[in-house]
Amino acid sequence: MAPILVNCMGNDHNDYIKQLVQVKNPYLDTMEEDILYHFSLGTKTHNLPEMFGEIKFVCVGGSANRMKAFAQFIHKELELPGNPEEIIDICEGTDRYCMYKVGPVLSISHGMGVPSISIMLHELIKLLHHAQCRDVVLFRLGTSGGVGLAPGTVVVTDKAVDYSFRPQFEQVVLGKVITRSTELDEGVANELLVCSSELQNIPTVIGNTMCTHDFYEGQGRLDGALCSFSHEEKLEYLRKAYDAGVRNIEMESTVFAAMCRVCGLKAAVVCVALLNRFDGDQITSSHEVLVEYQQRPQILVSHFIKKRLGQIV
Amino acid sequence: MAPILVNCMGNDHNDYIKQLVQVKNPYLDTMEEDILYHFSLGTKTHNLPEMFGEIKFVCVGGSANRMKAFAQFIHKELELPGNPEEIIDICEGTDRYCMYKVGPVLSISHGMGVPSISIMLHELIKLLHHAQCRDVVLFRLGTSGGVGLAPGTVVVTDKAVDYSFRPQFEQVVLGKVITRSTELDEGVANELLVCSSELQNIPTVIGNTMCTHDFYEGQGRLDGALCSFSHEEKLEYLRKAYDAGVRNIEMESTVFAAMCRVCGLKAAVVCVALLNRFDGDQITSSHEVLVEYQQRPQILVSHFIKKRLGQIV
Repeated sequence: MAPILVNCMGNDHNDYIKQLVQVKNPYLDTMEEDILYHFSLGTKTHNLPEMFGEIKFVCVGGSANRMKAFAQFIHKELELPGNPEEIIDICEGTDRYCMYKVGPVLSISHGMGVPSISIMLHELIKLLHHAQCRDVVLFRLGTSGGVGLAPGTVVVTDKAVDYSFRPQFEQVVLGKVITRSTELDEGVANELLVCSSELQNIPTVIGNTMCTHDFYEGQGRLDGALCSFSHEEKLEYLRKAYDAGVRNIEMESTVFAAMCRVCGLKAAVVCVALLNRFDGDQITSSHEVLVEYQQRPQILVSHFIKKRLGQIV
Repeated sequence: MAPILVNCMGNDHNDYIKQLVQVKNPYLDTMEEDILYHFSLGTKTHNLPEMFGEIKFVCVGGSANRMKAFAQFIHKELELPGNPEEIIDICEGTDRYCMYKVGPVLSISHGMGVPSISIMLHELIKLLHHAQCRDVVLFRLGTSGGVGLAPGTVVVTDKAVDYSFRPQFEQVVLGKVITRSTELDEGVANELLVCSSELQNIPTVIGNTMCTHDFYEGQGRLDGALCSFSHEEKLEYLRKAYDAGVRNIEMESTVFAAMCRVCGLKAAVVCVALLNRFDGDQITSSHEVLVEYQQRPQILVSHFIKKRLGQIV
């Protein structure tokens, strides 16, 4: 039996329940039907336990094309039957997100920014709950700007931090701001670091990841339509970030960490740095180089999954 | 000569300059090259004035399919030569956004949420600047949740307000929060209301639009993966919103209004309400009904454009 299945065999019913994906909403189980609107799926129109019950790994990333490529890649890596070119978008009824199922792996796109990934995560967590999935690990595979790192370096997130380098996420609930912790699973992060040491050409570090709500002013870029600060002020902000342990900047990690944590899901953020922000703001590498960089988180997470499934000893 | 062209003929050079799309970044014109990364366009690789110089109307919306459908619709409405089915995605080098040019109209998708539209707007405003466009009007055509409105009602935004019903947008710049006004162009909004009165079956109101950063907890939905409030607390929040003049809730209007205002661009937000949030949270209308609702902002804005171009007297 694959180690993951061994690991999740509890001794009693409580362990079994504990491993189920938890929603934190008392109303949900009283609803006659739950329409997952942005997935174009629903509890009455689809047999979610049958479609998704075996899922153990969920990989999410911003770009629809990239998450399709990841689904095809993991299909080959797991040596599953069927033609990886023929995988079907489960969310083809909508263009908000795309979703591919490859054996025990689900690959989903989430667009750019906290609100976009947050809608996806609400509906994903409900989907995993309705499907009675157990012991699921989530990964965000993304791109980012590096802070003092060579382009191509993969960052496994220690803490996801906000613009003030605090490991927290501010959520508005009915007009009031509440704060949630953004701590991620240390065990999974360390396991990913071990995986990287077993691979060629996947330079990897563990560091803090700063999550911003825009790409230009919030990340100190000098090349947006709006810019009211100097080159020196930009560098000073990046230096402060570096001193706070920040090694990369992206736009989804805090809400991803916060929601997974509240729902008891183990999660990791694995992003490649496309540039070193101390050296510039524009992404000038060739298309080919960027494509190779973007494969690195995929290769790393695929290695992790294969180890967990016992396909690599 | 079409009225828009008559209207924008200034008397002197200052007027001419004033009508140009303004970026607020002193560095931009000193850059040797500007790569609009998320559009897969650039100043060295593309002749932006030639490609986009004639643009007078920019229409943006969340869904890529919907903005393609709008481009095809306006192509037919303006009776332009060529087959509307064969329009080409100008951003086909990336899957972040899609973009179609139809005569003087640009149709672009922006994904969901403030960060996603904010990246698009930075690069769009730079594009219009590089292309030396003048006297451009921007429209956001979207879907939304109605507050005390019948499903299918179109809301032309008076003020875009935040979760506390304030007409402002909080932007983080190098770790500091600054506040920008979200006032929209009153003249364009009133002109749209007149247009609606000239059309059949486009029930339209002017009202405030609340912009939130998520779809579930922030909008008081009881059907997310997380929900910590009661049905009564939800209704109380919606009633407060209604009393503050809010007639619909969506996720992009504040940053859209704020950025257009800073750059001197006339802008309007035109969203159809898919449901009345006092009656529920889930979007349960049939696909056909939803498609018809989503066409309403398109029909309204198309009418506005045709009037401005002198195709309707």
